[in-house]
Amino acid sequence: MSYGGFGGADSNPYAERRLAAAMKVAILIGSKSDMPTAEAARNRLSEFQVPVEIHVASAHRTPEKVDRLAHDPETDVFIAMAGLSAALPGAVAARTLRPVIGVPIHKGLGLDSLLSVVQMPPGVPVAAVGLDAADNAALLAVEMLALKYPELVDRLHGYRAKWREEAPASGAPEKK
Amino acid sequence: MSYGGFGGADSNPYAERRLAAAMKVAILIGSKSDMPTAEAARNRLSEFQVPVEIHVASAHRTPEKVDRLAHDPETDVFIAMAGLSAALPGAVAARTLRPVIGVPIHKGLGLDSLLSVVQMPPGVPVAAVGLDAADNAALLAVEMLALKYPELVDRLHGYRAKWREEAPASGAPEKK
Amino acid sequence: MSYGGFGGADSNPYAERRLAAAMKVAILIGSKSDMPTAEAARNRLSEFQVPVEIHVASAHRTPEKVDRLAHDPETDVFIAMAGLSAALPGAVAARTLRPVIGVPIHKGLGLDSLLSVVQMPPGVPVAAVGLDAADNAALLAVEMLALKYPELVDRLHGYRAKWREEAPASGAPEKK
Amino acid sequence: MSYGGFGGADSNPYAERRLAAAMKVAILIGSKSDMPTAEAARNRLSEFQVPVEIHVASAHRTPEKVDRLAHDPETDVFIAMAGLSAALPGAVAARTLRPVIGVPIHKGLGLDSLLSVVQMPPGVPVAAVGLDAADNAALLAVEMLALKYPELVDRLHGYRAKWREEAPASGAPEKK
Amino acid sequence: MSYGGFGGADSNPYAERRLAAAMKVAILIGSKSDMPTAEAARNRLSEFQVPVEIHVASAHRTPEKVDRLAHDPETDVFIAMAGLSAALPGAVAARTLRPVIGVPIHKGLGLDSLLSVVQMPPGVPVAAVGLDAADNAALLAVEMLALKYPELVDRLHGYRAKWREEAPASGAPEKK
Amino acid sequence: MSYGGFGGADSNPYAERRLAAAMKVAILIGSKSDMPTAEAARNRLSEFQVPVEIHVASAHRTPEKVDRLAHDPETDVFIAMAGLSAALPGAVAARTLRPVIGVPIHKGLGLDSLLSVVQMPPGVPVAAVGLDAADNAALLAVEMLALKYPELVDRLHGYRAKWREEAPASGAPEKK
Amino acid sequence: MSYGGFGGADSNPYAERRLAAAMKVAILIGSKSDMPTAEAARNRLSEFQVPVEIHVASAHRTPEKVDRLAHDPETDVFIAMAGLSAALPGAVAARTLRPVIGVPIHKGLGLDSLLSVVQMPPGVPVAAVGLDAADNAALLAVEMLALKYPELVDRLHGYRAKWREEAPASGAPEKK
Amino acid sequence: MSYGGFGGADSNPYAERRLAAAMKVAILIGSKSDMPTAEAARNRLSEFQVPVEIHVASAHRTPEKVDRLAHDPETDVFIAMAGLSAALPGAVAARTLRPVIGVPIHKGLGLDSLLSVVQMPPGVPVAAVGLDAADNAALLAVEMLALKYPELVDRLHGYRAKWREEAPASGAPEKK
Repeated sequence: MSYGGFGGADSNPYAERRLAAAMKVAILIGSKSDMPTAEAARNRLSEFQVPVEIHVASAHRTPEKVDRLAHDPETDVFIAMAGLSAALPGAVAARTLRPVIGVPIHKGLGLDSLLSVVQMPPGVPVAAVGLDAADNAALLAVEMLALKYPELVDRLHGYRAKWREEAPASGAPEKK
Repeated sequence: MSYGGFGGADSNPYAERRLAAAMKVAILIGSKSDMPTAEAARNRLSEFQVPVEIHVASAHRTPEKVDRLAHDPETDVFIAMAGLSAALPGAVAARTLRPVIGVPIHKGLGLDSLLSVVQMPPGVPVAAVGLDAADNAALLAVEMLALKYPELVDRLHGYRAKWREEAPASGAPEKK
Repeated sequence: MSYGGFGGADSNPYAERRLAAAMKVAILIGSKSDMPTAEAARNRLSEFQVPVEIHVASAHRTPEKVDRLAHDPETDVFIAMAGLSAALPGAVAARTLRPVIGVPIHKGLGLDSLLSVVQMPPGVPVAAVGLDAADNAALLAVEMLALKYPELVDRLHGYRAKWREEAPASGAPEKK
Repeated sequence: MSYGGFGGADSNPYAERRLAAAMKVAILIGSKSDMPTAEAARNRLSEFQVPVEIHVASAHRTPEKVDRLAHDPETDVFIAMAGLSAALPGAVAARTLRPVIGVPIHKGLGLDSLLSVVQMPPGVPVAAVGLDAADNAALLAVEMLALKYPELVDRLHGYRAKWREEAPASGAPEKK
Repeated sequence: MSYGGFGGADSNPYAERRLAAAMKVAILIGSKSDMPTAEAARNRLSEFQVPVEIHVASAHRTPEKVDRLAHDPETDVFIAMAGLSAALPGAVAARTLRPVIGVPIHKGLGLDSLLSVVQMPPGVPVAAVGLDAADNAALLAVEMLALKYPELVDRLHGYRAKWREEAPASGAPEKK
Repeated sequence: MSYGGFGGADSNPYAERRLAAAMKVAILIGSKSDMPTAEAARNRLSEFQVPVEIHVASAHRTPEKVDRLAHDPETDVFIAMAGLSAALPGAVAARTLRPVIGVPIHKGLGLDSLLSVVQMPPGVPVAAVGLDAADNAALLAVEMLALKYPELVDRLHGYRAKWREEAPASGAPEKK
Repeated sequence: MSYGGFGGADSNPYAERRLAAAMKVAILIGSKSDMPTAEAARNRLSEFQVPVEIHVASAHRTPEKVDRLAHDPETDVFIAMAGLSAALPGAVAARTLRPVIGVPIHKGLGLDSLLSVVQMPPGVPVAAVGLDAADNAALLAVEMLALKYPELVDRLHGYRAKWREEAPASGAPEKK
Repeated sequence: MSYGGFGGADSNPYAERRLAAAMKVAILIGSKSDMPTAEAARNRLSEFQVPVEIHVASAHRTPEKVDRLAHDPETDVFIAMAGLSAALPGAVAARTLRPVIGVPIHKGLGLDSLLSVVQMPPGVPVAAVGLDAADNAALLAVEMLALKYPELVDRLHGYRAKWREEAPASGAPEKK
């Protein structure tokens, strides 16, 4: 089985199509201005061949849409991104029992969205990542999905091996 | 016309009963532990003879209840109190076009609920008061109601006159 | 009855003139540099056909002017904007019993004006909105006015309906 | 199938034993003083019949132990708790591709451990919950496990139904 | 010439009485709860034989009193103490051209009153000292007064000499 | 008697020269990069005809210079400006009994220099102004000097009158 | 060679006495209230048989004493502890070229002393440890001394081995 | 003996080569983007003729490399630089008993890396310097090395003498 991002070979297209149908990550953003962060997450997820949907759906503007999306039984993991007083991750987490990853967007003070996403009250678990941390949100989603979809495990190992190689080899430090 | 808190006389009971029916403040708290702050606000509102309902209704636990309460056509002004990542004021504000006053409760860092209540995204106006500021929330509600119910204007003036008198007279400073 | 911002028709010019005379929002800014934020609030209020006056009036420079404006019996709601140690909202709130909306302007650290506007002492209620949040200040003012002027209720509903539509429809998520 | 925490009946002991063998959460705490928070998380997990191990294992004191634990193939989800400059969640996350939930413990300023757990660099995803948020850490772990172990889904629904009921019924607000 | 606090002798009672008439510090506190801090400042000022008046006078409750006090021509230096959004120091500073020392009182977050007192807009100078820093406020007032009343210079030197001696002698460190 | 900044006439050059000899403000900056802020303060002081010296003198680099300057008997008031961990204002304040005004320079986080200047330990009074607040530092210095040099009182009144006029007249608000 | 804290044997008393003479750590505290933290550091240093002197010596009160102590040629490493605006570590660092360890004491906001100790300007290096971190200050001093005094290396290894053992063995996790 | 940075003469090349072999500072950076700060530190160290190696080695990406570098017996002092949740300094400090200097890099909020580097738990001493403070990190390393390599003492004195001279002479203040 192959996947785009990190080498591999002999992909079985049928298996891939089945996979594409079998797993899904839904990314919800509170406003269109958060789209670049959403796309960064989608790009990373696509390297793992994880199907992704991006929805602009605000806890305040379109609560019905958030409600409907949060109850989509085909979504395995949610990623919710929002700035300022970021209610979206909690709004999703209160409506689903699937894992919800919260990405605070740095708009106002930074601390505002970060604290709004992290300091959730008991019973509404949100998996917060750092400010604008699209990459870690995507990787965390893949790690969660890999509990269910074992084909992702190898890809994660492939990703991490490549990630480690991006750091220079240890044999030749920069001397002067 | 009389009212309990600040003197006055010649109250017309009929008018008062009509008043009690005509105006309403709904206080929503995210958890029972916020009840003392809610009661402090109610006590202040009661001095102005403003009918108050207190509901424990969480944006996350009981969104349907929040939804139902927020659409109550008889509520003139909402007061929503919550700690940590305080989503309740915004959840109410997104569901009503009546004014919503947000009271951040000091539970975690303080800054978390304060920023969550104040830094609302555009389109979801919340009138934030200070940490645990039940008194100012109540007064602000009365000021809003007084736009519609002129009988409150005199009570506000009575309250403020009394409030000013609580400060010592200027003629006799404490000397040494 | 019609209004500019959100469609409608069959406006009765007489009714509108009467309306214009009947309601008023006064925006006070501490310095001329805050004018763009004041104008953003006025533009939003104008969509609701709410008459607005903007005054440069500092709690420190021109307290008499603040005093005079705060006692204007024709003003229904005040919006006070200021940066740094933002005393203006409180100065107005201490001189009127009409609702006062405070807008912290982001000049220094951000936290300075935000905390100065939110953390008011008991007895001086200020309805704080977020940093530079002209839009929410205007909407909050309209919500307050709508308690007294029912013609605003429809406009608020029209505004919110349009606001919700600005988010993309839920039927067609961005897929990849 | 039954489970202790939220009602149910007719449990099949064999199925339960198989379950106990099949899933595992490992809680790592940086110091013994964090044990109460770890036990709170374990208690919540035990309500879902999720087997839990608690290890005192510091990223700094016993990195080999952290390394060994992080590579335990039988652990599905990790929960890492630490205060001050909280390196433990990241240390685990860098050594496994299973999901790692980070719980900042409030010891020094609060902001120190919170920012240390949330603001992870790219490539080292940590699912941060709030300060001392043992409950949400446990629930988040169950949500992740439920992707793989469908028997947990019903328990989650049972938990949430019960959790919602803890809020008072909407029919009878507290009036005065 | 003698003074109470720091030794000295041969005081001339006449000179002292003249002095008492000639200089004055006015301490303004926003609420009675700030009285202990005001008294700590008065006690320190009394060691320098500086006459002090303490007034409870709020920028919000009793602006007329603040106005009257701020225009008292016999006050050389003002000390204004307040917590939360601390408007009092600025309110005094805007009404006088005598120096105004601001003391933020630690009530809410600490940062709120500190930033409110320090971050004054241009044209309204306030000499801020630290949170609850009654001692430094008093000493700063004496230093300012000493520009005009030279009899205070010796007392300041006496105070500082004594203050330095409170630290242990350098010859005998604590060894072990 | 005349002064440059705020009108006036019939200056007596002799009196002015005597004045120039009689009063002095010394501005100390910790590094050359703080010069623009120092010059802004000097420009404001020059409008009041207050002689000013600017010295680059660091508490750490050139403590002897700080020591010598702090003991200059001809300096009435010191202004010390510094960024980061701003030790300079305290270093001067510990070596003189003349008033020391501290100006935190915004270089790192802002909060670092602000807290370093404001939160002085007891016995070392520093009159802190806001971040980069050259103007208020200068005005505060003039207010202190005016206790000793009465010729400054009129200039202060002239300055403030002009300052107030900079705000627009109250008769003509900006309407729309 | 033996040392008290971590086992060992066959100590040569002569060598130890020579050692005691050869190395020295000086702990400076800004006020007597910091003594418990100083003693905690001394106790840890004594386990390594490192001679320690504790001096109460304030950058502001007794700069001459700080100056004299900082120039003591027999001191290898300085530890300076102070709260609020903590100038002492920098004052020592500016007067010596020996390493200076700074310990911020948590008195006011915590952030005040922490930022004052860490955010030193270029040229005045201070080795900051955490709030009240007496233990790490002592260990850091021993690590520095061990560069010069090789007899400390074994003790450090002994200390760290013992420190690691304080964590429970990995074989027996707490299960339930 | 000579050294490049601060004058001197008659260098003995043999002694210098021996020196170059005898001492070593290793700078570890968590990502390549930190290289400019690492090079600033190396440039300063090179003025003191201290051999420096720069390694990109992340506590998370390449823990084995960090482990190997931390155990290099030829490194006298480590400098570890990292942003966000900066685990690198602690990771090195936990693996060596040589002094470790931590440099928080300003990437996210600033406070995140600063608190992560400073607030180390007991037993893992890190000598923190300010945000991006390459210069102070280098100087601190030289001060530590000078305990062991006395030839550095003169260079430090030469550096500091030159550093002091960079401040303008005290005889000629800038007047106006």
